[in-house]
Parts: sequence; C-alpha cells; structure tokens
Amino acid sequence: MNTISDIKITQSLTSKINEVDFENLTFGSIFTDHMLICDFKNGAWQQPEIKPYEPFLIDPSAKVFHYGQAIFEGMKAYKDAANDVWLFRPDQNFERFNKSATRLAMPEVPEFVFIDGLKTLINLDKAWVKHENGSSLYIRPFMIATGSGVIAQPSTQYRFMIILSPAKSYYSGEVKVIIAEHYSRAANGGIGAAKAAGNYSAQFYPTKLANDEGFQQIIWTDDATHTKLEEAGTMNVFFRINDTLLTAPTSERILDGVTRKSVIDLAKRENIEVEVRSVLVEELVHAAKEGSLKEIFGAGTAAVINPIAGFSYQGTYYELPKLETSFAQDIKTKLTAIQTKDAEDTFGWTVKV
Amino acid sequence: MNTISDIKITQSLTSKINEVDFENLTFGSIFTDHMLICDFKNGAWQQPEIKPYEPFLIDPSAKVFHYGQAIFEGMKAYKDAANDVWLFRPDQNFERFNKSATRLAMPEVPEFVFIDGLKTLINLDKAWVKHENGSSLYIRPFMIATGSGVIAQPSTQYRFMIILSPAKSYYSGEVKVIIAEHYSRAANGGIGAAKAAGNYSAQFYPTKLANDEGFQQIIWTDDATHTKLEEAGTMNVFFRINDTLLTAPTSERILDGVTRKSVIDLAKRENIEVEVRSVLVEELVHAAKEGSLKEIFGAGTAAVINPIAGFSYQGTYYELPKLETSFAQDIKTKLTAIQTKDAEDTFGWTVKV
Ligand SMILES: Cc1ncc(COP(=O)(O)O)c(C=O)c1O
Ligand SMILES: Cc1ncc(COP(=O)(O)O)c(C=O)c1O
Repeated sequence: MNTISDIKITQSLTSKINEVDFENLTFGSIFTDHMLICDFKNGAWQQPEIKPYEPFLIDPSAKVFHYGQAIFEGMKAYKDAANDVWLFRPDQNFERFNKSATRLAMPEVPEFVFIDGLKTLINLDKAWVKHENGSSLYIRPFMIATGSGVIAQPSTQYRFMIILSPAKSYYSGEVKVIIAEHYSRAANGGIGAAKAAGNYSAQFYPTKLANDEGFQQIIWTDDATHTKLEEAGTMNVFFRINDTLLTAPTSERILDGVTRKSVIDLAKRENIEVEVRSVLVEELVHAAKEGSLKEIFGAGTAAVINPIAGFSYQGTYYELPKLETSFAQDIKTKLTAIQTKDAEDTFGWTVKV
Repeated sequence: MNTISDIKITQSLTSKINEVDFENLTFGSIFTDHMLICDFKNGAWQQPEIKPYEPFLIDPSAKVFHYGQAIFEGMKAYKDAANDVWLFRPDQNFERFNKSATRLAMPEVPEFVFIDGLKTLINLDKAWVKHENGSSLYIRPFMIATGSGVIAQPSTQYRFMIILSPAKSYYSGEVKVIIAEHYSRAANGGIGAAKAAGNYSAQFYPTKLANDEGFQQIIWTDDATHTKLEEAGTMNVFFRINDTLLTAPTSERILDGVTRKSVIDLAKRENIEVEVRSVLVEELVHAAKEGSLKEIFGAGTAAVINPIAGFSYQGTYYELPKLETSFAQDIKTKLTAIQTKDAEDTFGWTVKV
C-alpha cells in the first residue's frame, strides 16, 4: 500500500497568491503555486511528485501533439466556515477518468495517485481556496501521451498531472443556444462519452459560427439524424416541460456528467418528476409553441447550473418564459449548498480533504 | 513579400547523422538535426526559426493538452541520382493543412512559412535524405495550441513546427483487416475530413481490440449504419472487383488523401476503370463470395500502397486471391518511380527543393 509519504514534495520558495485579485478571476486562467506530476514508463507508474507550477520540457514528436492521446477531468473543491476543504464526489471523477483512459488506450491511474495525490496537493495550496460566497477551487487532473515518435500508435509513456485554479461563481451572462442541424460532436462508436481532449477542439469552429449568429452555445443532436437532443459544449442539458424534467440518457455519444446525475437525484428528492429518455427536437419545438416548455438548463461542474434564455432551430428563435421560481434556480441553490457544506449532505457526496 | 532570408537560422554545432543506422529505421522514430518553429501570437505569425531539434518548454495548461487543438500533415521527400531532393505534391498538403486549421478554429499558416520554410529546412538536413532504393525523408508539419488556460475555447497562441524523419520503404508484413461493426472514427458533421490529432487516438483502442484478434487494421464504416466502407487508420482504401477499382468519395467523414487522388489519376492513365462511389459492405462480401473481388489495398503517404491479404466481417474471414500481377503492385511501382524521379512525371506532381 502506498502512503502519502510516497509522494515527493518540493515546495515553492515563494507564493504568487498575493498577486491574485480573488474578486476578479477569469475562469481557468490562474494557477496555484504547486502541481502534481506522475509519469508512466516501462509499463509502470513512477513516484508522484508535487512541485512548483511551471512549464515543462517535451519532445516535438510527443504523441499528444500528433495523435491527441489526452484526457482530463474537471472538479471543484470548496472551503467551509470552519476552514475545512471539501471535494464533491471525487470518486465519480476518478472512475470516469479511468474509463476515458481505457477508451483512449491509455493506462489507468491508481487511486493513490489521483485521490491521495490530489488531497496532498490541495492541502499544500489550501490558502488558495476561499470561503467567500461563490468561491471555489477548480481542479484539473489530466493525462497526456509523452512518448515520442510520429507513427499512429498508442504511446508507451504518459504523464498524469493535476493543476488547480481558483474560481469565482461562473456567470456567463444570458445564454441563448442554437440546436445543431449540421455539425456534431460525437459519432456512434466514437469517443463522445470520454473526456478526451479531441472532443472539445472539434466543437470550436461550429461554436464560433454560432457565436457569430448571437448564440453562446450549441445543443448537440445525434449525428445521424439530428433529431435527438444530446448535450452542450461542457454541460448536459435538462428540459422542463410543464413540471417534468427531461434529460437524455447517457450513451456512447454523451458524457456521463457528475452534475447531471446529482441533479437527477436532487430533483427526485424534491419530488420533481424526472424522465431520463431521448428528447426529440420536434418535441421541444412543439412544447415551446404550445407554452408547455418552461425551462432549459445546462448542468456541469464549471457553472453548476446554467439557465438558458431561449433556443434557435431552423432559423426560428424560441424565447423561454421568465419564471418567478425556476427549477434551475432552486436546484442550483440546493446543490451549491451541499457542495459548500451550507446544507446537510444527506447523499454522502462531499469528501473532506 | 517574405524571402528566405526572413527565416532565422541557428545551425546545430554537431550532427547526429553518424549515429543513425539508415538500413534499420523504425518509422517516425529518429529525427534530423534541425526543426522549424513559427509562433502565432497577438493575431500574427512571428518570424520562422530553424534551430537544432530539441524538446521545448510548454505550460501545463496549454490548450493542446486539454482540448486537442492540434493538426498535422504527412509528406515525403526523395533524393534522385543527381542528388536533388524532390517533394511530392506539397501544394496539396499545404492546402489540406489550412483546411484542417479552419475546421479546428486555428489560424491558417502562410505559404512562405509552410513551403519555403520546409524547403529551407530540408536543404539544411539534405544529407539525411538518401538516394538508396526505398529511402525517403518523412516530413511532419504540425500545429498545436500553446495558449494557456483551462477553459474550452480556441487558443489565441499557436506553434507551427516541421520535423523530419528519415525512412525506409514501409513494409508492414501481411495485413489482414477487420470491417468495423461497432466502433467508428468520424461523425457526420464531425472532424473526420481534417487531419486533426484527436481523430487518431480515437482509433487506438478499437485497433488494439482488432490486433488482439489477429487483424492489423480496421476498415472503418459510416457510424450511422456501418454499411458503407470508408477508410483505414491512415490510408484511404481501394477495392478491385473484376478489373474495376472502387473507392469511396471523400466526405466530411473521410480524409482527402493525396495518394488516393494520385492513384485515381494514375489508374485512369493506365486505362484502369475507376469508380468513385459509395462501396457497400454487402457488395464486398458478395464479391468475395463469388470470386470477383480480386484486391483490396490502402493508399497513404507512409506506405504508398499497402496490399491487404483478406478481411473479416461478422466473424467470417475472406481471404483474397494471390495474384501474379496485381493493380496494387503495378500502381505502387509506377507511383514510386514518379516520386523518386526514376520515371518521367507527366502529371507535374514533383517539386524540386
Ligand atoms: C462534454 C461534457 N458534457 C457534460 C459535462 C458535465 O459533466 P460534469 O457535471 O461531470 O462536470 C462536461 C464536463 O464538464 C463535458 O465536458
Ligand atoms: C485518416 C487518413 N486517411 C488517409 C490518409 C492518406 O492520405 P495521404 O495519401 O495524403 O497520406 C491519411 C494520411 O496519411 C490519413 O491520416
């Protein structure tokens, strides 16, 4: 069994923390003083190391650059009033990370490296997690293929890393979405269900086209028929028709979001009816026209819940009603309270660092 | 107008060339003494630089690691008996590179940087290109997103690089393929037609499963129905039924291969009938059963032409006949002769460095 003392720690001699304006943070742009690195070579994971955050050397022929062998996770830590730091369902991210690894023909990362390594790293940079309302620490574990050689084969060398970025609550302004009619993010039998780097750059160009038309996000549909509503860029999506919440089942094309499954559990606890089933574009348009479509919202780690103001389909824009009390707001408040330890965690989701 | 003198050159003080066994080269594993680097920042390409091949520093939050914003090309140079070095249709690779760039929301690379930069680089490492039978220089231009920040948005900083690797003729042994029934490489409306890094790692796991069953490659089918034959890992595919060559049309899901289009032109010149149209799996199986299926071969820069010994579909293996004179062999000989300047290039495909 590995113990924390098996992690090599080199502390930074100085801290950048005083240079940071914690009230004005751009999401994902500032990193804490330390990072975790663990290399895989000769068929085995080497000793994890925590050291000052800094650039590293890599060969121009490293397979991550040429064949996109790269996966990541996104999770958050919160500090409570007693100065304790809490993770939200880290077991889910760990499990999903290793599923992504398998799909990309990469080695699984041991729990000791991922979970214990993360806790050790956060403890070192604990001052970067703020208790102030809406503050959190965004956590980015990732793995890249560092082996060299320009032949399209899995690498034999990998680097697992964790970097940390302080975050304020994520407010993206009013979000209007467009429903995908031509472009898609995932193939049947593809890697859409993995948190693989290549899935994200594939969305940049279509998203830019959508932005140019005044929409912040795309709701992706199945690539074969474009009739089923799937998910958004980094969020699963929920639709409220009358008082029922609908969301697509996870599949090979859809990421199994931690926020999504927590929303489902929380909604059920609140006696909201939830249907996990294919949601058709025509059903959405019909509901919008007859007025039974009350809400659409995205669910993902960064924004937690992101209410959507309206959607465009085949050139028509459907504006959603402005509600006094919305499911999105209610669920966001309750979920955030659990994450920040302001409410009792009856689900057992929070884990102390 | 830029001129070659606008490229900053720092020559290596030593050469690794004497350490290299040019008779025993593993494809894509050894690199020449120099590389080209050109950075994009503040909305503009900076001065290209040729310098000794070496690892470089990059931030852990660089977008290439997290969102797979990375594209590449693969091309070859040959040395003729007079010691001149020739490129094969470099305009095609340049054009395709910039198409890939657009699809991945990356900036287009100027011709001066890509073509003149490449020629200057090759001239410096000219001794690495051998005239000996089957020798070539494999050329890998690529571009990665170097901007930092873990938010899923296009980078504002990029690095374009060219690295060179000496190669012998590529012989992969007997190649048996399996026809994809579940996994796929590309979505409708996806990035399959781009030479994007993420397309390749997506194939590693299914290919590993195929390898375990004794097949070296997968012939991908359309992801929606798995009924249409598309392409292989890094090759387009041709099917010879009786004396007609069939190959799929390029599409959003299929890379527009330079070898493929050269094979089509060459075959037509040889009065071979070529049909560019959807080829159905059932058509292939039917032809194999009735004996009209004579050949299958892959076409791509690395192997030029790769004959396939047989294919497996739904658990049945169909062995192809061993022919005295094959289209694959004939086309390979003629195409290679043009590339190496051993035959007259009536197409105007070769370009002197
Ligand atoms: C494609 C995609 N869908 C959905 C989500 C939401 O998942 P989670 O709630 O685990 O953050 C993410 C991740 O952030 C994602 O990248
Ligand atoms: C997916 C794919 N298909 C086909 C090819 C063949 O293209 P080309 O003949 O231009 O090398 C390649 C590249 O090598 C490829 O990566």
